[in-house]
Order: sequence, then C-alpha cells, then structure tokens
Amino acid sequence: MNYKKLGKILGKIMILESILMIAPLLVSIIYREDWKHKLAFILPIIALAAIGALLQLPKPRYETLYQKEGFALTAMVWIVMALFGALPFVISGDIPNYIDACFEIVSGFTTTGASIINDITVISHSALFWRSFSHWIGGMGILVFVLIFIPESNDGSAMHLLRAESPGPQVGKLVSKMKVTTRILYLIYLGLTVIEIIILMLDKPIPGYEGEKFFFSLLTAFGCAGTGGFGFIPGSMELLSPFSQYVISIFLIIFGCNFALYYLILIGKVRDVMKSEELKSYAAVLVSAVVLVFVSLMWRFEEFPQEYTVEEMFRHSLFQVASLMTTTGFSSTDYNLWPMMARTVIILIMFIGAMAGSTAGGMKISRIVIAVKGAYVNVRKLINPRYVPKMKFEGKSLDEKTVNDVFSFITLYFFILFAAVFLLSFDPINGELVTVVSDAGEYVTEHGFLSNFSSALACISNIGPAMEAVGPYASYAGFSAFSKIVLIFTMIIGRLEILPVLILFNPKTWKRI
Amino acid sequence: MNYKKLGKILGKIMILESILMIAPLLVSIIYREDWKHKLAFILPIIALAAIGALLQLPKPRYETLYQKEGFALTAMVWIVMALFGALPFVISGDIPNYIDACFEIVSGFTTTGASIINDITVISHSALFWRSFSHWIGGMGILVFVLIFIPESNDGSAMHLLRAESPGPQVGKLVSKMKVTTRILYLIYLGLTVIEIIILMLDKPIPGYEGEKFFFSLLTAFGCAGTGGFGFIPGSMELLSPFSQYVISIFLIIFGCNFALYYLILIGKVRDVMKSEELKSYAAVLVSAVVLVFVSLMWRFEEFPQEYTVEEMFRHSLFQVASLMTTTGFSSTDYNLWPMMARTVIILIMFIGAMAGSTAGGMKISRIVIAVKGAYVNVRKLINPRYVPKMKFEGKSLDEKTVNDVFSFITLYFFILFAAVFLLSFDPINGELVTVVSDAGEYVTEHGFLSNFSSALACISNIGPAMEAVGPYASYAGFSAFSKIVLIFTMIIGRLEILPVLILFNPKTWKRI
Repeated sequence: MNYKKLGKILGKIMILESILMIAPLLVSIIYREDWKHKLAFILPIIALAAIGALLQLPKPRYETLYQKEGFALTAMVWIVMALFGALPFVISGDIPNYIDACFEIVSGFTTTGASIINDITVISHSALFWRSFSHWIGGMGILVFVLIFIPESNDGSAMHLLRAESPGPQVGKLVSKMKVTTRILYLIYLGLTVIEIIILMLDKPIPGYEGEKFFFSLLTAFGCAGTGGFGFIPGSMELLSPFSQYVISIFLIIFGCNFALYYLILIGKVRDVMKSEELKSYAAVLVSAVVLVFVSLMWRFEEFPQEYTVEEMFRHSLFQVASLMTTTGFSSTDYNLWPMMARTVIILIMFIGAMAGSTAGGMKISRIVIAVKGAYVNVRKLINPRYVPKMKFEGKSLDEKTVNDVFSFITLYFFILFAAVFLLSFDPINGELVTVVSDAGEYVTEHGFLSNFSSALACISNIGPAMEAVGPYASYAGFSAFSKIVLIFTMIIGRLEILPVLILFNPKTWKRI
Repeated sequence: MNYKKLGKILGKIMILESILMIAPLLVSIIYREDWKHKLAFILPIIALAAIGALLQLPKPRYETLYQKEGFALTAMVWIVMALFGALPFVISGDIPNYIDACFEIVSGFTTTGASIINDITVISHSALFWRSFSHWIGGMGILVFVLIFIPESNDGSAMHLLRAESPGPQVGKLVSKMKVTTRILYLIYLGLTVIEIIILMLDKPIPGYEGEKFFFSLLTAFGCAGTGGFGFIPGSMELLSPFSQYVISIFLIIFGCNFALYYLILIGKVRDVMKSEELKSYAAVLVSAVVLVFVSLMWRFEEFPQEYTVEEMFRHSLFQVASLMTTTGFSSTDYNLWPMMARTVIILIMFIGAMAGSTAGGMKISRIVIAVKGAYVNVRKLINPRYVPKMKFEGKSLDEKTVNDVFSFITLYFFILFAAVFLLSFDPINGELVTVVSDAGEYVTEHGFLSNFSSALACISNIGPAMEAVGPYASYAGFSAFSKIVLIFTMIIGRLEILPVLILFNPKTWKRI
C-alpha cells in the first residue's frame, strides 16, 4: 500500500471540498444568516484545508497506484467527503444529529436524494444550497472533478480512479486522453445545467415563493443535473407550474443519457449517436414505461384518490417515469397511491436506471441489454452446441468476460439489496403507522415490507423517495440510527457500483503483496 | 427435430400417467365415492392410454435426441402431464374451472403446493389423493421416473432429459450408470417416505378426523417427500400434534438434502458426506434462520397476535423454516402476522431453497455458495491482477463456466420473478381487501405489492403459500385467470430451472439445423 500517495490524493480532495464549501458560505452571507450558519461552513473549511495540507507533507517514494489502491481510495474518498460534509448541518443546527447529517450528505453526494428532513421549511438557505450542490458535485464524480485540476494524476493510476467511480459496465471510448475528456464532459455538464437554469427562469415564480425564483431554479437544476432529487419546498415539485414540470422531465431524460453521446454530437458524429444501441433501448424502456403508467392511470381499474385531468395524467406519468428511471426522485404528485400496475412499473424502472456514463444510478440500461443478450446466447448454445456466439454491443464485439461481469454485477446487486432489506427488518419502526399528507389528502400507512424493500432499492439505485411509509411525501427520519447507517452504506455501494466498497473492506487489500 | 421419437417418449409418459391415475381411482373405489368421481379418473385413463398408444405407432428413423430436443421435450412433458392431470378435478366437479384445475395440478407436479381451493373440506378423498400424489411423482421428476421403466432410453439422450429436469447447477457424480442410479435414488425416496408414514402412524389421530389416520399420514408423507405442501384439512398442519409437527420438520430437512448423500451413506462413505460443503452450508443457513426467527418471536419488538409458549415459538420457528426453506409450504401457524424480521428471514430462505439434487425448489444452496465464491474471486482479481483463482467446490475445482452459469441463472431468476410480479400487477384483485381466518383470529388484509411479490416468489421457488393476502391461511383463488396462467408458467419455469422452458418457446428450437 502506497499510504503516502493515498494520503496525498485524499488530502487534495479535502482541500477541494473546503473550496467547494465556500459556495454555501457565500449563500449564507448573501441571505444574511446568523453567525452559527456562517461558522457551520467556516469551521469545516478550516479543518479540511488544514488536514488536507498536512497530508501533502509526506513524500511518497513512488507515484504509481495499483488498481486495488484506486478502488479502495475511491470508496475512502466518498466516506471522508461525507464525514466532513455532514458537519455544516450539525453546527448550524439544521440537522442536529450527526448520523442524520451524514445520511443527508451521503444522499446528496451519491445523488440519491433520500432525506431525513420532515419539515423542509425550517432549513436555512445555505443548508438547502449545500444539499443540492452536493448532488451537482457528486453527479459527475468527485474524483473525476479532481482529475481536471491535478496535473500529476494524468498517468495510469488516474485510470483506475475513473474506472472505479464511473457508472456503467465499461469506461467509454473517450478516455484515451483522459484529462481532455473529463474537461469536455464537465463543460457539457456545466453547459446543460446553465441552459436548464435559464429555461426555468422563464417561468413565473412558484406561488408563495416569489423572491426565490433564481435560488430555486439553481437548486432544481443541481438536482436534475446530478439526478439527485433533493426538494426545497414541501411536496417536492408538486407546486411547480406544468411548464416547469415538463422542462424538468425533459432535462432529466437528457441527464440520463450517456454524456459521451453529447461529445459525439459536439464533434459532429450525429450518425454514431443515432446508431447507439443503449440510446435506443433507453428510449424504448422510457416510452413503454410512460405508456404503461399512463394506461394504468387512465384505465382506473383500481381506485386511487387523485382526480387528474388527462393532461395531468400524462404529465405526472412522464414526470414520475423520467424522475424515477433517471434515479432522481423528484415527485410531482403522490405516486405512492397509484394503482398497482403503475407502482410496479415504477419499481421495475427503479431497478433498471438510465444509461451508463450518465449521472444516474441503478443497474443501467446497458447492463440489462448485455444480460439479455448473454442469456439469449446461453439458450442458443443449448439449442445448438456448435453455435458460436457473435455477440455485439454498440457495434463492438462483446467478449465473454464483459457478459460475465454483468451477470456477476446483477447478482451482487440483488444480494446486497436483499441483505439491506434484511438489516432493515430489525428496525423497531416496522409495523408502525405513519401519517402522510400529500396532494391526495391525509392518509395513514403502515411501515411494512414494501417500505423496507423500496427504501433499500431507492438507496442502492440512488433514487431517494421510496414507497408506502417512505414515499415521496414521507421521509427517512423514522428509521433507527442503525438502519440509517445501513442505508448510508447501501447508497455508497450503489453509487460506486459495489466493487470499490467491497475492496475497501476486504482485509486482503491492506496486506502487502 | 426428431418428431417421431419425441412423440414416442411423450406417448410413453402419457401411458405412465394413465397408470399412475389408477391409484386415485382405487381411493375413489375404497371410499365408495359416486360414479362421477370414478369417471373422473376412468375417462382420462382411457384418453391418455389411447393417445399414448397411438403415438407409439410411427417408427422414428433414428433414436438419438439432441440436447435441445431433450430440453424442449422436458418442458413439453410437464405441460402435457398438467393438461391431462387437471381433467379429474373438472369431471368430478371438485374444481369445476379448467384453468383452476390446471393451476392445482401444476402446483402439484411442480411440488409447489399453491392452491386455489378455498374450502378444503368439500374436496373428495380421491381428489385429495391425486393432488398429494402428484407431489410425490413430481418430486423426483417425471422423466427420471420414466427412465427406470424404459429400457431403450439408456443411451446418450437420456442424459439430456435428466440434465434438463434435475435441480441444481450440475448433475451429480452418480450418473455414470444412470439407470442403476435412478433406481437407487427412487428406492431411497420410497424408503424414506415409508419410514415417515410409519412414524406418523405412531401418533394419535388428528382430533375430529379419527378415521383418517392412515390416509392423512400418506398425504403428509407425499407432501414432505416431494417438498410439495398441499394440505388436506383447514389450517394446513396447524391441528397436528407437536409430535407430528416435529416429525414433519425433521423429514422436511431430510428431503431437502441432496439424495446423493444418502447413496453415499448406503455404500458406507459417511466421511464423504461429512465433508460435503453444500451440506454444511445448508445446515448453517437452516440453523441461522431458525435462530433468527426464534429470536424475532422471543424479542417481541413488534406486536403480533399469537400468544405462544416458548416451546411453541421454537416449534413454529423450526417448522416454518424447515417448511419454507425446503420450499414445501406446510404451515403450523399463521406466519403472515409475525414480526418483520421473522418474515424477512422467511422471504430470504424462500429465495435460497434447499440443496441441489433434492426435491426442493428455489435457487439452491450450492448456487448461492458458488455465487459467493465467484464474487469473492472477482474482488480478489481486482485487488491483485496476478491472482490466479483456485476455486473449489465439494473438493473439485470449479471452472469459470460453472460460475458464470450460476451468475446467469441467478440473474434470470430475478428477471423472471420481477416479470411475473409485473404481470400480476394487471390483476383487478390489487387493492382489494381479503378476510383471513387463521389461528391468530380473523383479520382483513389488502392485496398489495407484497402479495404479488411473494406469490411470484412462492411460485418460481415452488413453495406454495405466500404472504399478505395470499398467506398460509388464504388461497390463490382470488387471482384472475390471466394471473393464474402467469403463475402456472412461473411454477414450471421454477421447477425446470428456467432453461428448458426458454428452449421450448424459442423458435430456433423448431428450425432444422
């Protein structure tokens, strides 16, 4: 283990976090919050910068990092970022409990959007900003962010970090010149975010929040870009105008696409984009899901309390599918009370997620496509033992290793999901009745199996709101501290796609080779 | 496609089914049932024998079967067995609806034990016998049964049939002399069944059913041996004495073991049995599950209505874990109302199932062990790229293909499970309230997500009773015809471990090579 080098990178990231915290500090100053809210950022900034600087002092004897070190470092970075990122909430008193604060910031950085805040109206502007900003930072990856600024990391070890952090079964083709690529990707990310803010600013302000138009547009765009989903007013996106809800739906779908596609568009290779198998599959799943949910609402086979117009049915179907498939978790209505068919479709897309190389979580469309192809080939081999599979994905031939990695990933995904469901079953909240107030009125629901199952799924897929007693109008506040810690790890495991966390906690990683 | 040969084997199996139906016909005669109940078996016997004989007439030009034909035939045999096996229920009027009757007999042959019968007290003796007998036949496999009696099938093609039908990731080491082996396995199966009947006969009769002691012991033993789980009196096994409940628990655990182990004991290789990794894992999971459920009941963290003594808590924990882990589905109490932790453990063991090479369903312990080893190796490879895995299972080295097949199997298992959950979400029963009367009193429960999820899981793992509105004291009667057909296929897919059914319905299978 090259501890000194690991410490150096970790230290740089701590310095970076201290720089990033200046933004919410400015928000705190602009909104003239009290000294406690300013101190809430000043103290962690000093601590992070000091420790980060100290970690730069030891000189590593060599620069290279092994793959295992890259993976373990990635997991470690996310944990350290969370441990310090939670401090502002505790110091300001917005979230006094440290575990709750950790839950909230991990939910932010992992772009989950699960919240333990019951009453969002008492949270300060600076805390609201820090939460949503963490989505934007976490969306593209903390380490990717660092790669832009650290010159020396433009060597082989940087590849390991990127590989550990970037979502999807393989790193895109763009990584040959990694630093250039990450810069371009971040520019696209920034550009799309700015465009969304501008379009959202065209709308009239949310009734009752007339002075907050720019601030809320900013937070909305952060939540969309990172596919995070933290809300900032009661009822998530319910009070927004239909115009804004459509705009958000479209940008969610855009941020659910592989960013490499935008790069291809920029360099004029539009035909390559059109040929993308993953894009086609993404569109197909998305459209099918919207249609199925819409039909389920129109059909009215089962009663549900909301009295939608046809336009509202379409808008909510589109919004919820876009929000949950991209694993964002904004809500425009209480889908928790929708018919079973609509809710089951929602659960399925919560598993699937959006495209690899996007900011979204979940298993990713490309993995599902590869798994289906692999399964088909297995059947074909049994039908005809002489059959030589010529599996292709995105025009390139698919080797067995990739297919097997995908199968292994999906298996681990389900195993970890059900392990989390098992650990949540210890919680004393099980069987409790929870009162929820939503656009469908007030109702009482039990914290049952679906609550645990959907919470674990919403955390591993980095979605946020779950169902039943942890639905879009409820919060994770009722869970015990133990359950919250379980869900914190579930979110990190989901964001880093399992392996880095397993490597970090494997004793073999820390042994000398 | 060697249609003539396929027809010939199919015909032989139809003749076999007609012979097997003589047993319930005898029951009908012994219990002096009316002519309708006798005709219920006589007519199908004649039809099966006639069609079976006709199919023997064409002379196949060659004898060999390809692997694909073996797999497709296996799936076909199970469907044909069900289509004819359902007739007695319809003719006798015990289950007038044909789809319901098909559901019931598929549930029988696949050793699921899911029932659409709401009032078991009105069902005739012959129908009760036929249901439970189908568990016993299906447990060891219909085709395996045939192999004993057909001399010509002792060639290469028999291997394909056995492979398609036998549960678990690989066929045991005993298959070198297949006919001898299957005979020995069947003798062990028969012997254990007889021993269980004798031990159950030592108990006092069930109060209120004094004249039925032998008949009920027989049906109980059929249900245990096949790990099927059809009940024959209201409340499944609730009214049985503690003695009988303990006996059943022990025999369930015995029938959940790989039968090859008993063969090894018979030939004196007890040390090999003790070394079996799968046996150790089976015991470990079983004991952990019993302890967890027992602790959950003792702890009383959540309220549940039953007032158990400590002995009852232990007995019901043991009974339910044994019953559900071996995918049998007998119940001694209403576990549907147990605390979340107990119910979550139950759901997990419903996934896992018992040992490969037993009569049980589910993913099988060996697959779980292999998947965990495979995942560990994947992590180790990332930690140290020069790491050369030396994976072993049961003392033999584990090749990558086996591991990948296991990952691919588990992925497909989850995909098919959630596909079934999706199709069940169309059912108008969703959201309905169902009244259940159990040992915990009368209560009302909603047909919600857990009902669909647990039903699909109970069917693909061949368990039977599910949870919530489809719990141990409820039935599958409320599902729509469409849902029942979905579940029929889910049961067959689960019993044949996915691939044969996929091969049957793949158009490529039916094309000339």
